[in-house]
Amino acid sequence: MARALLAGAIAATEAVALEFQLRMMKIRAATETDHDAVWNIFHETIAPGDTYALDPKMSREEALAYWFRADTHTYVAEKEGRVVGTYILKSNQLGPGSHVANAAFMVRSDAQGSGVGGRMAEHCLDEARRMGFRAMQFNFVVSTNVPAIHLWEQLGFKIAGTLPAAFHHPQKGYVDVYVMYRSLLT
Amino acid sequence: MARALLAGAIAATEAVALEFQLRMMKIRAATETDHDAVWNIFHETIAPGDTYALDPKMSREEALAYWFRADTHTYVAEKEGRVVGTYILKSNQLGPGSHVANAAFMVRSDAQGSGVGGRMAEHCLDEARRMGFRAMQFNFVVSTNVPAIHLWEQLGFKIAGTLPAAFHHPQKGYVDVYVMYRSLLT
Repeated sequence: MARALLAGAIAATEAVALEFQLRMMKIRAATETDHDAVWNIFHETIAPGDTYALDPKMSREEALAYWFRADTHTYVAEKEGRVVGTYILKSNQLGPGSHVANAAFMVRSDAQGSGVGGRMAEHCLDEARRMGFRAMQFNFVVSTNVPAIHLWEQLGFKIAGTLPAAFHHPQKGYVDVYVMYRSLLT
Repeated sequence: MARALLAGAIAATEAVALEFQLRMMKIRAATETDHDAVWNIFHETIAPGDTYALDPKMSREEALAYWFRADTHTYVAEKEGRVVGTYILKSNQLGPGSHVANAAFMVRSDAQGSGVGGRMAEHCLDEARRMGFRAMQFNFVVSTNVPAIHLWEQLGFKIAGTLPAAFHHPQKGYVDVYVMYRSLLT
């Protein structure tokens, strides 16, 4: 009993610590001074080739051109003055499809599992609503990326479709991809 | 009976005439000399804003830059020396997603219903197979575009997902969009 109480107390302390850490996190628009930090996160995210449909050998120049495109809003998450994550938000389509947002998220490997992704995603949903988007769509969620799928489901996204064998995973071969979608009106 | 036979004979004659017309159609890689014809078809296709997630007011320059991108294969369908349709074929995603093709088709308004779209689509599937693509995906088939959906289903595509209210139709308001997909291995 004492043991269980102690375990509870420790869990509560950890939750408070995580809460505190997240509160200490600042999410802001990225600037040119963030290019080095963003490129480091981008590179370590795409190099294994297991989550993004991007060339794992993409150069720094190509990566920054993609992540900081003129039609794209780019953000960074900062903790204790250090960039621990980055995300982009843009229209998924043009013209009569431009009311649906699209976003992509990357978290520094040594900050994963600490709530950075979830916090950025909530910030992103708020930003998208503020900009007047009516829905958000992820076009390409690799089915083996279980933590991401769980996070999106927690945040109200549903699997709108399955693309059979649409991703070539370096270890698992051809695997399915999900299109995920949620309304921003509710 | 005689009437039914006659109707059959007329239908058969029409089928032969269509077959002949389609055989007279030539599909080839587009060149710079096709820019005027392609722009005319592109413009009349997107101007109503009811099928493509493109800005209906897109300029000629933007349209041609989009349709003739470096990573895109652009084709035209020619009948009696006149361009009656155009399509593009490219990778839908990069890197580990680059084995899935994407395509888009436009047919001159006065050539619609004459089999040009179907003929271009078959050509496109052959080209995609020849280039080694393993599947083809249409990201954004507006649910009100019934002729297109029928054609893709006839050609083996299935609705892989539904994007609720992802298209703002000028007459019908927010309508669903389908993601359509087919393997090229079978």
